[in-house]
Amino acid sequence: MLLIINRNAIDSDINIIKDKIINLGLEIYENKGFNYHIIGVVGDKNNIDSVEFNKYKAVEKVVLIQEPYMKANRLFHPENTEIKVNDKIIGSKKINIIAGPCSVESEEQVVSIAKSVKKSGASFLRGGAFKPRSSPYSFQGLGIEGLKLLKYAGKLTGLPIVSELTSIKFLDDFVDNVDVIQVGARNMQNFELLKELGKTKTPILLKRGLSSTIEDLLMSAEYILSEGNENVILCERGIRTFEDYTRNTLDLSAIPIIKKLSHLPIIVDPSHGTGLWWLVEPMALAAIAAGADGLMIEVHNNPDEAMSDGGQSMLPEKFQHLMNNLKPISNAVDKEI
Amino acid sequence: MLLIINRNAIDSDINIIKDKIINLGLEIYENKGFNYHIIGVVGDKNNIDSVEFNKYKAVEKVVLIQEPYMKANRLFHPENTEIKVNDKIIGSKKINIIAGPCSVESEEQVVSIAKSVKKSGASFLRGGAFKPRSSPYSFQGLGIEGLKLLKYAGKLTGLPIVSELTSIKFLDDFVDNVDVIQVGARNMQNFELLKELGKTKTPILLKRGLSSTIEDLLMSAEYILSEGNENVILCERGIRTFEDYTRNTLDLSAIPIIKKLSHLPIIVDPSHGTGLWWLVEPMALAAIAAGADGLMIEVHNNPDEAMSDGGQSMLPEKFQHLMNNLKPISNAVDKEI
Amino acid sequence: MLLIINRNAIDSDINIIKDKIINLGLEIYENKGFNYHIIGVVGDKNNIDSVEFNKYKAVEKVVLIQEPYMKANRLFHPENTEIKVNDKIIGSKKINIIAGPCSVESEEQVVSIAKSVKKSGASFLRGGAFKPRSSPYSFQGLGIEGLKLLKYAGKLTGLPIVSELTSIKFLDDFVDNVDVIQVGARNMQNFELLKELGKTKTPILLKRGLSSTIEDLLMSAEYILSEGNENVILCERGIRTFEDYTRNTLDLSAIPIIKKLSHLPIIVDPSHGTGLWWLVEPMALAAIAAGADGLMIEVHNNPDEAMSDGGQSMLPEKFQHLMNNLKPISNAVDKEI
Amino acid sequence: MLLIINRNAIDSDINIIKDKIINLGLEIYENKGFNYHIIGVVGDKNNIDSVEFNKYKAVEKVVLIQEPYMKANRLFHPENTEIKVNDKIIGSKKINIIAGPCSVESEEQVVSIAKSVKKSGASFLRGGAFKPRSSPYSFQGLGIEGLKLLKYAGKLTGLPIVSELTSIKFLDDFVDNVDVIQVGARNMQNFELLKELGKTKTPILLKRGLSSTIEDLLMSAEYILSEGNENVILCERGIRTFEDYTRNTLDLSAIPIIKKLSHLPIIVDPSHGTGLWWLVEPMALAAIAAGADGLMIEVHNNPDEAMSDGGQSMLPEKFQHLMNNLKPISNAVDKEI
Repeated sequence: MLLIINRNAIDSDINIIKDKIINLGLEIYENKGFNYHIIGVVGDKNNIDSVEFNKYKAVEKVVLIQEPYMKANRLFHPENTEIKVNDKIIGSKKINIIAGPCSVESEEQVVSIAKSVKKSGASFLRGGAFKPRSSPYSFQGLGIEGLKLLKYAGKLTGLPIVSELTSIKFLDDFVDNVDVIQVGARNMQNFELLKELGKTKTPILLKRGLSSTIEDLLMSAEYILSEGNENVILCERGIRTFEDYTRNTLDLSAIPIIKKLSHLPIIVDPSHGTGLWWLVEPMALAAIAAGADGLMIEVHNNPDEAMSDGGQSMLPEKFQHLMNNLKPISNAVDKEI
Repeated sequence: MLLIINRNAIDSDINIIKDKIINLGLEIYENKGFNYHIIGVVGDKNNIDSVEFNKYKAVEKVVLIQEPYMKANRLFHPENTEIKVNDKIIGSKKINIIAGPCSVESEEQVVSIAKSVKKSGASFLRGGAFKPRSSPYSFQGLGIEGLKLLKYAGKLTGLPIVSELTSIKFLDDFVDNVDVIQVGARNMQNFELLKELGKTKTPILLKRGLSSTIEDLLMSAEYILSEGNENVILCERGIRTFEDYTRNTLDLSAIPIIKKLSHLPIIVDPSHGTGLWWLVEPMALAAIAAGADGLMIEVHNNPDEAMSDGGQSMLPEKFQHLMNNLKPISNAVDKEI
Repeated sequence: MLLIINRNAIDSDINIIKDKIINLGLEIYENKGFNYHIIGVVGDKNNIDSVEFNKYKAVEKVVLIQEPYMKANRLFHPENTEIKVNDKIIGSKKINIIAGPCSVESEEQVVSIAKSVKKSGASFLRGGAFKPRSSPYSFQGLGIEGLKLLKYAGKLTGLPIVSELTSIKFLDDFVDNVDVIQVGARNMQNFELLKELGKTKTPILLKRGLSSTIEDLLMSAEYILSEGNENVILCERGIRTFEDYTRNTLDLSAIPIIKKLSHLPIIVDPSHGTGLWWLVEPMALAAIAAGADGLMIEVHNNPDEAMSDGGQSMLPEKFQHLMNNLKPISNAVDKEI
Repeated sequence: MLLIINRNAIDSDINIIKDKIINLGLEIYENKGFNYHIIGVVGDKNNIDSVEFNKYKAVEKVVLIQEPYMKANRLFHPENTEIKVNDKIIGSKKINIIAGPCSVESEEQVVSIAKSVKKSGASFLRGGAFKPRSSPYSFQGLGIEGLKLLKYAGKLTGLPIVSELTSIKFLDDFVDNVDVIQVGARNMQNFELLKELGKTKTPILLKRGLSSTIEDLLMSAEYILSEGNENVILCERGIRTFEDYTRNTLDLSAIPIIKKLSHLPIIVDPSHGTGLWWLVEPMALAAIAAGADGLMIEVHNNPDEAMSDGGQSMLPEKFQHLMNNLKPISNAVDKEI
């Protein structure tokens, strides 16, 4: 960490900072030029809270040299992390596709979709039981009942299941029933939830928040990792920008950046990332071309209601089309699917 | 709600939508021109989930005519809501200033700041006991112990206290000890938390999320209101934009907009909204000029550590200066302080 | 266009609007429900300026049903536009790679890079002669001299050349010397420049502005097209968001969206879109996977200065590596390179 | 400027940078710690182009210590700049209000509005003659004829006039006829235009671009100042964010920030900044409370067409109301109006 000292800072104010650094057991490297003055701070990263230094009168600016996350940092963990879920591995040469309905609605629905996506080549089944909806008047999910239906469909098809946890109230139910616990974009900085998840051993799928930088995402992963759970899968799902044609702006550059900064696997959710079903396939292909370890795709099966052409879910036949086209792209980047 | 029908939609797909509308007990108004076709949907707002219609093949676009929130809507509640907290009222002609430290650190600290801000004219005491920090290695607050110290300082000075709740785990402690429960920006869409808060009677200070629109904020208020708690105070605290000089971009236009759309009181937090102590005074003056019902200001008292010139907290003397300058501005907009 | 009428609008104010519509030679379709009132406006798109209707007291909201661009609209031009430049075609099955230095610096530099990128498979040579720099103290380009050097290198290698025009002052020089005239992101809404370019026959490469929506980009294309120049190539190069790891956030969803909305070819500039040379390859692969018609890549050749590891330009050997990897991706999406 | 050196950089790559610094006539201050290595670069700011250093392999990050603008920098010009326009001064204790129609439409219109705004207390008359419109099919302004009408109305009322220049083609007409030349948000980085304006002596009103940081705005001012024209007035008019209730998000924190960083006057345009006439008054009051030197307000006078309730222009009586309410706010911040 570098402290850029204020041009007009007086010695007594500068000494307060130096005392603080030494009291924290850290070392000082000082550098003073004609029109600048810098204090470098060196020591155990754990002991330095850069925000603390921001507030001193004599400090103009704090410059971080090292990333603020450690356990998520590739620097200290050069090998890719591979996460085992039953017989699947996320983060290896094999691309994993997590597919399923937005919400679990009935046994018939979830079983039918599970069978269909498995046939098309999906390796995980997703389905929402607790739905975080911006309106209290919207359908909030079937709850625990939905979780059981999802588990049943997973068992029937042999697909591990992924579902979103929205409150620590249901933590035990999720640990008992779900193979991968999803943390949604809106809860990415629900730190109390992250800490509790860090105490479990269940793999966590952590989605990037709508206004979160890549560093924010890695810091949230650090919350889980630092409590002892090393099974964290990151997920890019779009950020909020001024462009309103799409629901969010899918930031695919996050894939190679996370691959550089961290050893954790990164997948992409083009369904939420765009909000339009016809954008899911091109963005899915692009995500794999950019190096993603997998995809999360919403699929439903209400052809009799002609649903889906406006929403973000794909019909099973469109999903099959996507899976067919993913194969040559995966091979082109030396992956399997 | 209006459904703009796809130019190429076939009759059978359009009929599916019409059947759905009628099955929901709603009415249809149809309008077909040379190159457009619109279906208006009318009925009890509670029964219409606009998102549900988005997914039909025949629907090009869904246009909402009425706002999706009801209990927070000024249309159905034309009078300003005034929220009583002990002997104070938020939302009236009297401007309320909530001041205090970012975190409660010790009895001495919180008592000293409480006395100081009271003397300067603050009407509420704020203080963090549970701190949502982006790093797991940063100070996370004193927890329940911090809450007790804050309560003690509040009692001593007669100031009602405001503190942030970060998890439903601590809900009872907050209901028992705190006069106003704050929901932070990062939890604005933690819907499970909002629902639980809606079941209490404690006034809630709901902060706008970093990537939340004004409508999102009002929808989150609706979660609390719809469960029965009508004591919701909204708080603008900056949104995330590309401008990086400030920590966030304080959106003061939210004040008159919320005054138009809703009956709920709205206050402003210029400390978090800018992240720089020397911007707090001009932005506080601007907020009151734009019609805010109050302010939330971070104040600390470590003059011996020369803190504050870089951070967002004000020293007590700067806070006194601000309070002095707020008086003529408040009078200029026909308010009292 | 739909006008959503204000709930409390009085008849005389509504009649003013109706008179205005009829005076413009347009037709009215009215629709009034229990709590809504809509006036549909139909007629020649050219005569309707939606912004004009926004200002009436009785109008709550204006909803556009048809896109505001016509000549750029696929609706009126279903076939893809293919743009011929010498012996190359942009917008066909063949992917075109435009490569070259950020700025033309010397004959030796531009010739050497031109030969190198041609050898690797580039089909166009790019090079800046007039550089729009945010600082007046930064190198502003070699000007007309740079243009001549670029033309010379293009002739030598047989590659058509692309360069950015920053002012109408130099329009004739560009028409005379350049094969494709580039309009940079900062000039995307320099409408006077667009109109002048619309009067030429030279193909125009129009870059998306940093804060421009996809619709804004198509409207700027419309300026050129409506003046008679139908040779417009669109270019996605990143938008400005809160994420600061990359220089901009490359919005690859713009590719399939533009393919749907418009018949114009769309290419991607991952060099400016990310600002980091090591992100260029993964983003280039992703762009082609998402359906882009081509790429624009910065390449330089100062290995003796060890340049490039921090900037956005690739060394020739990295560019060769990219070209090798583009081939299987192009084939996977049924394109040639 | 500080160069943070890459952890794994080899000596030969570092030496290339050192040689470059010395060749530029600059000095090196080196600082190497256990896990960091920094090279400080000191010398004449004019000679350092930080972007140039970004590209070296050995450079991890470039940290600017000094702002990249000089002539606009308060550091080198501590006194406020006051800009004289006829008998008015912008940047002094007296607040200036620039008011008038969006577009000049006719002699009757502009004269009538000019008289009206003068009576209400405006000190400048604004009016668009050349309108940058996002659609080529929208009204583009009366051109030179509009300029003449505006000049006539200015003469009649004694108000100096402000109008937007959209192309260097019309530069002489503007220098001859206009008291203050406005550069619109879309041309803020039209550097060729800025350079030409820098060669005149006419005061320039420079609007912040939709995606421009405060530093970008000051760099654009630097373009004008560095060519010799010191009469630059800055204007905050909103930035583009995800919030879509308003046309833009007015960033009032830009006022005190610019007051700190620069000596140039700063005014605010709440009409374009919000896009809604009923937000103009509260935002205008807030801008003055935050320290703005003036305001730019759109006023029109078509009461017979009931215009203005939806758009961003105020009716004369609303403008009079605003002017009445500005007085106590101005006095509260120790200014006159």
